[in-house]
Amino acid sequence: MQKQSKTIYLDHAATTAVDPRVVEAMLPYFNPQYGNASSIYGLGQEAAEAIDEARRTVADILGCQPREVIFTSCGTESDNLALRGVGWARRNLGKGNHIITSPIEHHAVSHTCEHLKKHFGFEITYVPVDKHGLVDPDDVSRAIRDDTILISIIYANNEVGTIEPIAEIGKVARQMGVPFHTDAVQAGGVLSLDVDQLNVDLLSLSAHKFYGPKGVGVLYARKGVPLLPTQTGGAHERNRRAGTENVPYIVGLATALKIAHEELEAHNQRIATLRDRLIAGVLESIVEVELTGHPTNRLPNNASFVFKYIEGEAMLLNLDLAGICASSGSACSSASLEASHVLLALGLPHEVAHGSLRLTLGRENTEEDVDYVLETLPGIVQKLRDMSPLYSN
Amino acid sequence: MQKQSKTIYLDHAATTAVDPRVVEAMLPYFNPQYGNASSIYGLGQEAAEAIDEARRTVADILGCQPREVIFTSCGTESDNLALRGVGWARRNLGKGNHIITSPIEHHAVSHTCEHLKKHFGFEITYVPVDKHGLVDPDDVSRAIRDDTILISIIYANNEVGTIEPIAEIGKVARQMGVPFHTDAVQAGGVLSLDVDQLNVDLLSLSAHKFYGPKGVGVLYARKGVPLLPTQTGGAHERNRRAGTENVPYIVGLATALKIAHEELEAHNQRIATLRDRLIAGVLESIVEVELTGHPTNRLPNNASFVFKYIEGEAMLLNLDLAGICASSGSACSSASLEASHVLLALGLPHEVAHGSLRLTLGRENTEEDVDYVLETLPGIVQKLRDMSPLYSN
Repeated sequence: MQKQSKTIYLDHAATTAVDPRVVEAMLPYFNPQYGNASSIYGLGQEAAEAIDEARRTVADILGCQPREVIFTSCGTESDNLALRGVGWARRNLGKGNHIITSPIEHHAVSHTCEHLKKHFGFEITYVPVDKHGLVDPDDVSRAIRDDTILISIIYANNEVGTIEPIAEIGKVARQMGVPFHTDAVQAGGVLSLDVDQLNVDLLSLSAHKFYGPKGVGVLYARKGVPLLPTQTGGAHERNRRAGTENVPYIVGLATALKIAHEELEAHNQRIATLRDRLIAGVLESIVEVELTGHPTNRLPNNASFVFKYIEGEAMLLNLDLAGICASSGSACSSASLEASHVLLALGLPHEVAHGSLRLTLGRENTEEDVDYVLETLPGIVQKLRDMSPLYSN
Repeated sequence: MQKQSKTIYLDHAATTAVDPRVVEAMLPYFNPQYGNASSIYGLGQEAAEAIDEARRTVADILGCQPREVIFTSCGTESDNLALRGVGWARRNLGKGNHIITSPIEHHAVSHTCEHLKKHFGFEITYVPVDKHGLVDPDDVSRAIRDDTILISIIYANNEVGTIEPIAEIGKVARQMGVPFHTDAVQAGGVLSLDVDQLNVDLLSLSAHKFYGPKGVGVLYARKGVPLLPTQTGGAHERNRRAGTENVPYIVGLATALKIAHEELEAHNQRIATLRDRLIAGVLESIVEVELTGHPTNRLPNNASFVFKYIEGEAMLLNLDLAGICASSGSACSSASLEASHVLLALGLPHEVAHGSLRLTLGRENTEEDVDYVLETLPGIVQKLRDMSPLYSN
């Protein structure tokens, strides 16, 4: 098969193109408004004001105080700052060393929990998820101990798109007096981020998931939650995150988040229609395939599946040849050959989990894109199954 | 005094304008080459290749293997990863918890040392510096103990520009088997970064000090040096720094470093001539002023002074009105009213350290800029002294 010249990008959960409006907003801060925001002369103060305005924009969308917004270098840093920062601060205060999380977190949370356990003796409890990936708030409640210092549950899963009952889990956490963090990286551009309605104390965002640049994120940290910085130096971000502010990207993140939330309803409606057409088409045209994640309570842009008798990797390469960008398992470890920990946690057998495909839609996708996938994918699946010793037609 | 419309930027140690060639190199990676470098399809692999090429470029300039280059979000993160990463790795291996550093480090090192001491029980020894800010390698040698796990000495000081005898200190460290880190953030664009000649095991860089963007750095980490990551998640940077790669900035950093080192000799010669003209002019035209830092062994772009009887802050505001961007004490804490820890370590009294001024030249500065400062500064100093109760003419 010859490589298609047209590219249909269906991996918006991995990353997105930076919106031209965002690039335009960032450009002046490379040059000529390149001041260091810590400098007291005009050029520096212009940079500081741009950051202040960006912080207010983000705070408005989160329904929080600007001072509760910490700019970081990415969603992974935000997750690390939440877990390590609150974990160490509360542990050093003698509150304990027990963290509750789920088995379907992004690696930025799950690997950080395991790191804290292995190298620093923290204890981790994983509450179960059902076959759709849902956490039960009652399970969280039962897992809380006297020495529980933090709960971290993903807002919407990055692989299967399931949206967790964050507000309910947050209610439980608040009743028990345990700080509650949510990784909202996938939810950032499509779901409400109102931290009071969500009952969260900490929330992570990453700009490149909502048409902002890679390399900038936010950690919302509710006033009063103890947080030991993980990166020290200058007094930036009110002593919670040292390092010269990345002015262009901070402006870019705020611009991208604002656009996403202004256009949220229309975007979600359009994209969910495309998603439903895609899901229905795949389930109709291919046998021995299953939708993964929650049938309805899922991200508007996520269509994820497992196909029996084939390897996700092989599907991706064939889709790439057909001009379709997609991913299998977690985007952050597509190069890895391990089955996705998320799909295994949903109860799927290893051999089935290996045949996963995630298609995540975005702004530039059209009905024609969906139709092209529906024309292309069945043939690829059939070709790969015909090559599989496990498959007998 | 009415604000000047012309701006003369003399704060290149704080930050630099992004070179238009660097912006141009970065732009395609915002859009359309926005792929996630972890994705296996073409768009992702193009991003991975851009990072590989950037890594090779940096490695060539450092004289190291590409795998020894870790891309981070800034110089501060690089310093933190070096100190926390090696500190914890070696401590957890039972090697001890003693770190040697100098009293004239950037806050990213000094505050991190103090943080490790206060919150995690590490022990810190500060070797002295002489009145020019020089560390004596013999002092480092004497400070090494059986439980010393790391030595961190700045390559060239950010306030007074003194260049430390890094190769000699590195030799001592190597003889004693202690990993040696240097914060080369100020040296990055103007001094040799050959890690073998410098005898360093870890070296920090920040792009925005050499006409690259703010928000990207490098930590060189010699193969074999134990390093516990401080930010965990995906397997990025060979499991040493998790987080989706900031492709545009990584490309930008490499482009900026390459340009700086190609143009290094001519740039340094030109800039040192301007610096010498500036220093001589200030010392000739103003009384009761002292050059700070080493008279000759200093960064080619650094002219730093203390003026008796005046506050640096007041000088900066007056210079700003005259269109001159400068800084006093450390740029990262110019907003702070504390006297610079660097100037105090050089033995200057508090009241003198408060009257500090740092002028750091850069690519776009001209002889006319220097002459303008020399015309402007004496009047400002005299005006402020005339207002000072401590000064009697």
